[in-house]
Amino acid sequence: MSVKNTVFLVLLLFIPVSLAAHFLEWGELVVFITAGLAILPLAAWMGAATEEIAVVVGPVLGGLLNATFGNATEMIIALIALKAGLVDVVKASIAGSIIGNLLLVMGLAMLLGGIRYKEQTFQPVVARVNAASMNLAVIAMLLPTAMNYTSEGISQEVIENFSVAVAVILILVYGLTLLFSMKTHSYLYDVGVAETEDEETPNHKPNVLLWTGVLLVCTLFVAIESELLVDSLEVATSKLGLTALFTGVILVPIIGNAAEHATAVSVAMKDKMDLSLSVAVGSSMQIALFVAPVLVLAGKAFGQPMDLDFKPFELVAVAVSVLIANTISSDGKSNWLEGTLLLAAYAVLGFAFYFHPVMS
Amino acid sequence: MSVKNTVFLVLLLFIPVSLAAHFLEWGELVVFITAGLAILPLAAWMGAATEEIAVVVGPVLGGLLNATFGNATEMIIALIALKAGLVDVVKASIAGSIIGNLLLVMGLAMLLGGIRYKEQTFQPVVARVNAASMNLAVIAMLLPTAMNYTSEGISQEVIENFSVAVAVILILVYGLTLLFSMKTHSYLYDVGVAETEDEETPNHKPNVLLWTGVLLVCTLFVAIESELLVDSLEVATSKLGLTALFTGVILVPIIGNAAEHATAVSVAMKDKMDLSLSVAVGSSMQIALFVAPVLVLAGKAFGQPMDLDFKPFELVAVAVSVLIANTISSDGKSNWLEGTLLLAAYAVLGFAFYFHPVMS
Amino acid sequence: MSVKNTVFLVLLLFIPVSLAAHFLEWGELVVFITAGLAILPLAAWMGAATEEIAVVVGPVLGGLLNATFGNATEMIIALIALKAGLVDVVKASIAGSIIGNLLLVMGLAMLLGGIRYKEQTFQPVVARVNAASMNLAVIAMLLPTAMNYTSEGISQEVIENFSVAVAVILILVYGLTLLFSMKTHSYLYDVGVAETEDEETPNHKPNVLLWTGVLLVCTLFVAIESELLVDSLEVATSKLGLTALFTGVILVPIIGNAAEHATAVSVAMKDKMDLSLSVAVGSSMQIALFVAPVLVLAGKAFGQPMDLDFKPFELVAVAVSVLIANTISSDGKSNWLEGTLLLAAYAVLGFAFYFHPVMS
Repeated sequence: MSVKNTVFLVLLLFIPVSLAAHFLEWGELVVFITAGLAILPLAAWMGAATEEIAVVVGPVLGGLLNATFGNATEMIIALIALKAGLVDVVKASIAGSIIGNLLLVMGLAMLLGGIRYKEQTFQPVVARVNAASMNLAVIAMLLPTAMNYTSEGISQEVIENFSVAVAVILILVYGLTLLFSMKTHSYLYDVGVAETEDEETPNHKPNVLLWTGVLLVCTLFVAIESELLVDSLEVATSKLGLTALFTGVILVPIIGNAAEHATAVSVAMKDKMDLSLSVAVGSSMQIALFVAPVLVLAGKAFGQPMDLDFKPFELVAVAVSVLIANTISSDGKSNWLEGTLLLAAYAVLGFAFYFHPVMS
Repeated sequence: MSVKNTVFLVLLLFIPVSLAAHFLEWGELVVFITAGLAILPLAAWMGAATEEIAVVVGPVLGGLLNATFGNATEMIIALIALKAGLVDVVKASIAGSIIGNLLLVMGLAMLLGGIRYKEQTFQPVVARVNAASMNLAVIAMLLPTAMNYTSEGISQEVIENFSVAVAVILILVYGLTLLFSMKTHSYLYDVGVAETEDEETPNHKPNVLLWTGVLLVCTLFVAIESELLVDSLEVATSKLGLTALFTGVILVPIIGNAAEHATAVSVAMKDKMDLSLSVAVGSSMQIALFVAPVLVLAGKAFGQPMDLDFKPFELVAVAVSVLIANTISSDGKSNWLEGTLLLAAYAVLGFAFYFHPVMS
Repeated sequence: MSVKNTVFLVLLLFIPVSLAAHFLEWGELVVFITAGLAILPLAAWMGAATEEIAVVVGPVLGGLLNATFGNATEMIIALIALKAGLVDVVKASIAGSIIGNLLLVMGLAMLLGGIRYKEQTFQPVVARVNAASMNLAVIAMLLPTAMNYTSEGISQEVIENFSVAVAVILILVYGLTLLFSMKTHSYLYDVGVAETEDEETPNHKPNVLLWTGVLLVCTLFVAIESELLVDSLEVATSKLGLTALFTGVILVPIIGNAAEHATAVSVAMKDKMDLSLSVAVGSSMQIALFVAPVLVLAGKAFGQPMDLDFKPFELVAVAVSVLIANTISSDGKSNWLEGTLLLAAYAVLGFAFYFHPVMS
């Protein structure tokens, strides 16, 4: 058994520990930390199960499955937080997921890959399409906030209606990017996939029933642990001296995205940058064009309305992250310094969120 | 006779109808709609006449003619609106023309062209020079507004003087971009032109006198119809439940640019992307670097001063449009998804202007 | 003796003149102008001395020397102004140095080089790394200001602590860019260096002792003249009808950067664009990633705390300068129109700072 799997099995022990901590009232801080640790292996296995099932059901359905469940952990945490009324934490974690994937994950991948290989390359056309999609997402996040700031007495209802309209457009666009990458221009994306398939045994036939079971069980436990995480979040983080903003933007996304981090970095170190970026940027796109709009529509259904009116500082952070990530990736080449610049930008933003006082 | 010409002849009937509606007082809404429809064929024939005269007078004078009269319809509508004191509508329609050309026209061209051809290419150097020019225009629009927001009690006179200084620089830059494209680096731009000339009969000799007559008559009628359009604008659009902002940014530019829309899309579908983009982006550049500054200087002359101090929300919209258009065009390649992303950005902005309340 | 050296010797006469003006009280305006003129040859010789010493001590130490003393004049002026409590002038001159190098110096180099050569090329990878570094610097300048604007009652102490944290990150990044350009990826940067070495005599052995002496003497006199310049600055510029902002952003950087201007333009006219851009953009990067953070740390040590909370208008100016410079340089090609666009952006910004009233 690999080191990774051993670590995951050990982390699994935090499921009973976190439940005990909750029911025996060991304090919110213990619940928060143990629930956070318990989510890590569950998220990883959900990802693995999704990929195994995808192999069996064929490329089209499998692609769709990956595209829908790829960020299932974040989606579950966000839905539970939304239901608990923590709209601000949800928005902060959306912003933080985008920032974390573009700067932390892509930065680490480029840095560690770049230390091994002088220059790494990837499909520039894909990088540009992704850059433009992320720009569109920034525009969608920017406009409700800009509307709020440039007009007096705009009603909450108008912002919500506008957010719903934008959410529908973003989900449509997300569907079209899938059509582009899986159907009309799939040859641009085949590079990474072909490379990974090399490693698998030629006659690998996953057991669908088994993996569906794994997926369901993991989803169930992720939901339970997310409930614990969300319930203990406010008290625990204030005990740690952290603001809700820092928790939402930095901590929650790291828990939710740990699996993607590991994958993106490990394939970058094998010089498979196309795959690495498709995980990092693809995850950002999925959050921005699919998870966030779904949350807007879900919020409407829950009677816990969530709009796309982000806090200006979150917006600034997302916009500069997209800007610097696009500047670095758009030529289809990377090196270790570019990775460092992304990480430095993440560090600067992290400090900013750490020092930023609670906002009105 | 082609379908297009038949449609145009029918639309021409709206000239007498709009005049009747005006003098017989059939209501502002009828006047507004019929005048808008009457402008469409007139604008198309003004464009055709300009091009025919350009063929005869040679490339240099012809290029200048095209560069000056290419957006004559917008210029006439704007001058009449400016004289009527509708400064806000004029500014909104400048912003809207830039947005519409970059997102709606270029988006439709890339989408419909991209459905036919997997990947379309165009001169990346031209795309970059255009991108930088549009960035300069955004800077010129941004600074007066930024000045106003970052200092207390700045006088209107200072903003106007600054706007005049900037207008002079922009017109100079516009002249230099013509020198670049028609003289020192014309080889970069010859691709599109050569392609179009193929189709024309080799000995095509337009009748200058006839076309000059057409140009003059059309200009006269455009001016009359614009007068009707501007007079009825405020009452008509409020009857339609639209704000002045939405009318200025979305409706007026669509009327003024309809001819360019048709050209850019039809040549894109023949895989002539250089020509298509030169119409779409060229039209944006002409608005930003020539029409807007001329209006500033004309306003000064009229005693109806117009500055470059745009509303923040218009500015945000122009800036994000330029950003996303530059991201997509700067590599000299396009595909249907990139067209879709531009259209989605246009839709999102359109919703934003629709929902945006009247601004103070 | 070359014309340049003759001019420099004549300018040297302004050292005694400025001292006389100061002690004989000929008025602040005379002191300001003569001290400014006296700094020009001193700055040039400091640059020359640094380069000569660099030749002897070898590429690594020499590169470090260049990287540290390359902007010594600006650093000295800024430190003296900082000690005199002119924090706003220091910040304005940091912003102005970045703007001036990216727009004025790079613009002149591309324009004058581009008039001679139809298209000039340079390493696009280097241009991209520089673009990303400048984006990081803009982010570092933007965040403290954004923090201040998006939260109520943020304490000055928090802004200062955050600025110190950011300063440390920026200095680390600067060190890593040196490692990248001088060690791991030096082959990308060798083009320009190889070209300049052609011209030097093969056995050129500078006298280190002599040049160290020149460096020390010049540094001493630059310090004295900077003292005179800073002392007379406020009275002199208000006599000229200029605001402190205009002086800091436009005038001071021109004095401090004159030597780089001359070098960047003259090598561009010999078609050595790699070298020209490494001077212009390199100087901007050095200011943003090294001089500014050192000033933050020095200010802390002086008890004259300087943070990175720039005025919004300065920030807008730096951000748009970086944006347009990146758009133009990122493809590794330049022509005269691109130079003109940079100069036009500089002119527009210059007007803006000229017209901008004194800010609260």
